[in-house]
Amino acid sequence: MLRSIAHIGVAVRDIETTIALYSALFGHGPDHREDVPDQNVRTAMFAAGPSSVELLQATSADSAIAKFIEKRGEGMHHISFVVDDVRAELRRLEAAGFQLIDREPRRGAGGFLVAFVHPKSAHGVLIELGQKIEAAHGG
Amino acid sequence: MLRSIAHIGVAVRDIETTIALYSALFGHGPDHREDVPDQNVRTAMFAAGPSSVELLQATSADSAIAKFIEKRGEGMHHISFVVDDVRAELRRLEAAGFQLIDREPRRGAGGFLVAFVHPKSAHGVLIELGQKIEAAHGG
Repeated sequence: MLRSIAHIGVAVRDIETTIALYSALFGHGPDHREDVPDQNVRTAMFAAGPSSVELLQATSADSAIAKFIEKRGEGMHHISFVVDDVRAELRRLEAAGFQLIDREPRRGAGGFLVAFVHPKSAHGVLIELGQKIEAAHGG
Repeated sequence: MLRSIAHIGVAVRDIETTIALYSALFGHGPDHREDVPDQNVRTAMFAAGPSSVELLQATSADSAIAKFIEKRGEGMHHISFVVDDVRAELRRLEAAGFQLIDREPRRGAGGFLVAFVHPKSAHGVLIELGQKIEAAHGG
């Protein structure tokens, strides 16, 4: 089950310029900043209630974010949903006919175990499933 | 101040087909359906916690949704934020240098008074500001 929206990922060319602008938009600076080397991205989170906007800048030319911007320009990249059990959700969605990008979850930003569902499966929306793991004991 | 994310708008060609697919994704049917003649759209909302995903199908060829799909294909169209006072937010953002699409708010789906900020102002993200009005007395 998709419990709530964790964040909306936004692909940007220059995260520092965008942070300045989004700080004016939100009326406050980013609540969290983190580099995720596994995904070749630098991130910054702006909270709006229980959800956030996550800015994403590629740290390598072969990052998915770099490719996305090359193809479509800057803008909304994915929706991340909070789930209780990311592996169970992957199995459920695969059985329902959704095409998975990740068959096994990997480490994302903010202490989440994440996996992506292909946008071709969901009318152009790249969907991330995220299970909070940092607070749990033993992962 | 942007209090929370009301919804993510997703532009789709055929809302009925997408509702069937998204019902499988969310594990439940849409929580709300509404036509918004002012904006030439048919909408369906899927709740995920306090936020929703809003599917949008154009009901006229000159709808903004039809033009968006023609140019970019199906996918994420806008982020809608809950604000207390949409007119005050428009003034605040204009003063901060953001380019407004609507200088005066108009009627949106779900009993909201809405206005849009231009995606050119926000690194490719179309931002909707929404003020709940239906429960208020006298607007």
